[in-house]
Amino acid sequence: MKLISETKAFDGRQQRFEHQSTTLDCTMRFSVFLPSQAENKAQRFPVLYWLSGLTCTDENFSQKAGAQRMAAELGIALVIPDTSPRGDEVADDEGYDLGQGAGFYLNATQLPWKQHYRMYDYIVDELPALVEAELPVTNRRAISGHSMGGHGALVIGLRNPERYSSISAFSPICNPISCPWGEKAFGAYLGAERQTWEEYDATVLLSRTTERQPILISQGENDEFLEQQLKPNALETAAEAAEYPLKVEHHAGYDHSYYFIATFIEQHLRFHADFLLKP
Amino acid sequence: MKLISETKAFDGRQQRFEHQSTTLDCTMRFSVFLPSQAENKAQRFPVLYWLSGLTCTDENFSQKAGAQRMAAELGIALVIPDTSPRGDEVADDEGYDLGQGAGFYLNATQLPWKQHYRMYDYIVDELPALVEAELPVTNRRAISGHSMGGHGALVIGLRNPERYSSISAFSPICNPISCPWGEKAFGAYLGAERQTWEEYDATVLLSRTTERQPILISQGENDEFLEQQLKPNALETAAEAAEYPLKVEHHAGYDHSYYFIATFIEQHLRFHADFLLKP
Repeated sequence: MKLISETKAFDGRQQRFEHQSTTLDCTMRFSVFLPSQAENKAQRFPVLYWLSGLTCTDENFSQKAGAQRMAAELGIALVIPDTSPRGDEVADDEGYDLGQGAGFYLNATQLPWKQHYRMYDYIVDELPALVEAELPVTNRRAISGHSMGGHGALVIGLRNPERYSSISAFSPICNPISCPWGEKAFGAYLGAERQTWEEYDATVLLSRTTERQPILISQGENDEFLEQQLKPNALETAAEAAEYPLKVEHHAGYDHSYYFIATFIEQHLRFHADFLLKP
Repeated sequence: MKLISETKAFDGRQQRFEHQSTTLDCTMRFSVFLPSQAENKAQRFPVLYWLSGLTCTDENFSQKAGAQRMAAELGIALVIPDTSPRGDEVADDEGYDLGQGAGFYLNATQLPWKQHYRMYDYIVDELPALVEAELPVTNRRAISGHSMGGHGALVIGLRNPERYSSISAFSPICNPISCPWGEKAFGAYLGAERQTWEEYDATVLLSRTTERQPILISQGENDEFLEQQLKPNALETAAEAAEYPLKVEHHAGYDHSYYFIATFIEQHLRFHADFLLKP
């Protein structure tokens, strides 16, 4: 793991690392924000993992969400992975919604994707193990994300309740097995057998789980992808049927952009802090 | 003046406009943030003008500084112009530090620049007149900026004390007549006669003025351009000699990036609010 840049921000450190991922079989980059440490004290911070949306790298959230201010104040580290395996040797597609920049946080089973596209295992296992071994962080974790990354946060959080104390999402793809983005990506990565898609569908997972994790979702009502791609209503209906205490906040006038995230990231960080910082 | 995009942010409106500038003789874009208005009330807001640095457009500050949160809270509008005239018909240079994206907030007198490169007049006169006629803002103004835009804010603020209630800058080019960026740009735009450069040099202007405007400057001590290009010490020395109450804050560890701006923009907005919002 090699530090490739470091910038001071909010008295803490905004860092970018590069490492050879064994899970993804390629070189990966990720960003980290570490709050400032009390002098002469080897302080360790709980981590919020942030999963970004289609076309993003680790830099979009770092530069546009303004999350560092509140992370610094609360004492929470941010770890921001890339959205897919990367590199000339990694399979790709011309569409913005498949291949590099569009890993969908799953383990692909189909050619040509299955060699590298194992973002689920990377996010759940390899990256936290690396980060917890190398950086001043604890193994207390929360997970959040936006759009495709909101899907990733919900799926990974719901399937690993022992690993994440809380889950949140902005404008997540809630029911990918029945929306165009999900059908295209899952068909390519997982094949035609639709039943195998269900383990990566937040609406299906939530309707089946007996766990009750804290989940907060923020959704803009002017989001251009709301009806066709995101479908929070499917998730809300499943939550109601399962009597799952899901909190979905619909915000009038807000769209799918980082301005929406910037507006409500403080609320999400405070939500996660309630669980991450519990004694 | 045509609205080309609008996004809700912090309960206010992040907007982008396009207009035909008579001063610059080309089509220009600029960004605006307007805090939310009390219902049924035609509220008008004072304006902080933000001037960006080399290579920037109106979008960098809008997306990366996180200024909207505090602007919304304080009730201050943000107006963010582009950094030069633009367009295929506008003279340009291959360097990042001359031509489009590098207008240096002056009125060029030399060929091929003088037709379009009149950013000083655009920022001082045309843009405020337009904004004050078309948007819910008052004629109370403050001015700030970063790097080349910090130079612009200091020069424009110092030369027009009746128009700006307060001035601030992040990492400004303080003494452009004696640094490589300034010498290259002023030589091209203003010609070989160095005396004509002085009306665009904050250090010269501050040493000559009898006005005493509130000025706040933030400078990172790890700024890669500090010694060769920015030279805050020249401005501080001039302020001391003139007994000008200039406030320059040097911040250990911070660099020239937007992470530095994001960290201290709240302080700058609160500083300007003290004067903009005075009854």
